[in-house]
Amino acid sequence: VTVAARRRDREVLEAAIKVFHAHGYADGTMNQVADELGLAKGSLYHYARTKEDLLFRLLEDAHAHVEAILAAAAARADLPPLERLALYVRGQLEFGVDNLPLVSVCNRDLRHLDDPRLRGLMLRLQDHHAWAVEMIRLAQERGEAMPGVAPELLANCVFGAFIWVYRWYRPEHADRRRAVVDGVTRYALAGVARP
Amino acid sequence: VTVAARRRDREVLEAAIKVFHAHGYADGTMNQVADELGLAKGSLYHYARTKEDLLFRLLEDAHAHVEAILAAAAARADLPPLERLALYVRGQLEFGVDNLPLVSVCNRDLRHLDDPRLRGLMLRLQDHHAWAVEMIRLAQERGEAMPGVAPELLANCVFGAFIWVYRWYRPEHADRRRAVVDGVTRYALAGVARP
Repeated sequence: VTVAARRRDREVLEAAIKVFHAHGYADGTMNQVADELGLAKGSLYHYARTKEDLLFRLLEDAHAHVEAILAAAAARADLPPLERLALYVRGQLEFGVDNLPLVSVCNRDLRHLDDPRLRGLMLRLQDHHAWAVEMIRLAQERGEAMPGVAPELLANCVFGAFIWVYRWYRPEHADRRRAVVDGVTRYALAGVARP
Repeated sequence: VTVAARRRDREVLEAAIKVFHAHGYADGTMNQVADELGLAKGSLYHYARTKEDLLFRLLEDAHAHVEAILAAAAARADLPPLERLALYVRGQLEFGVDNLPLVSVCNRDLRHLDDPRLRGLMLRLQDHHAWAVEMIRLAQERGEAMPGVAPELLANCVFGAFIWVYRWYRPEHADRRRAVVDGVTRYALAGVARP
């Protein structure tokens, strides 16, 4: 794969993100993506055969990023489990606020993927959830997390607290990006910690 | 309006919720709603002229419910502000888990409404956010909430924590409905309270 081909692949994904973010995946069209690129529709098919291929590729791209965030947090065996979880939440928040259109499309339009692609991505997402549950379970054993509440429920709450940011954060908040990342990370962990 | 007409209106809304929940608003069709009702498409037009009319009516219906939840919590001037906020969160959670398909459609497909309907509903939603911000601001003044964090940010986190439930709660969780409502309410408020 040449540098030029890689660059073009990246441009095609950026155009797809822009179109799906603005119009939604269901209403967005390959024609709009081609227009965004200044390409004829026939040329776009050289890069992606179907609209669903574009959705799959941008979801794969996003998942590669968040899997790296999970791997980095999971590797910190030197830290107590809730601090590892906080690192993960912080990484997700930074990725989210810096890639709002991509993360919005991921959250909104994942369900439009066809099986077995949808099933494959859902399984990868479940790894994140399972890891968060394990961190909370460990923290409960160590007396560091809220006892008597199912770790699965607490993990779902943590995901809600940080994922929801894509619905209210605006690019014009960039000057308080750090306060948002710090504030939401603290909030997300506070409800897990032992009171 | 007769009792029969009211009942039919309710059936039309239930059918629309079912179709939009299963297929998404963008992909769902008036034909599917008519099929769900066992009506000819021409007869359905007697009850709703466009697909967007159906979306608007079910959103209006949901908003009437959540506005009653807000009014009930706001009326409790005898309670400290974070307890009023907890009442609101609990009410939203109970409504959410008992009306998952409706709440899913509301969260996913609100953006498909046309202006000025979209603008009108967004303004009504802003009242909820503004009230939560005010409760948190009051609690900060009373030394009962986390100081030094913008109440707007904390309010957004609270909404994320309880709204996200529609993405992970399943009808088969009904036997632990109470544990979910209690657990998420506690989680949502813990990140707001003074540590």
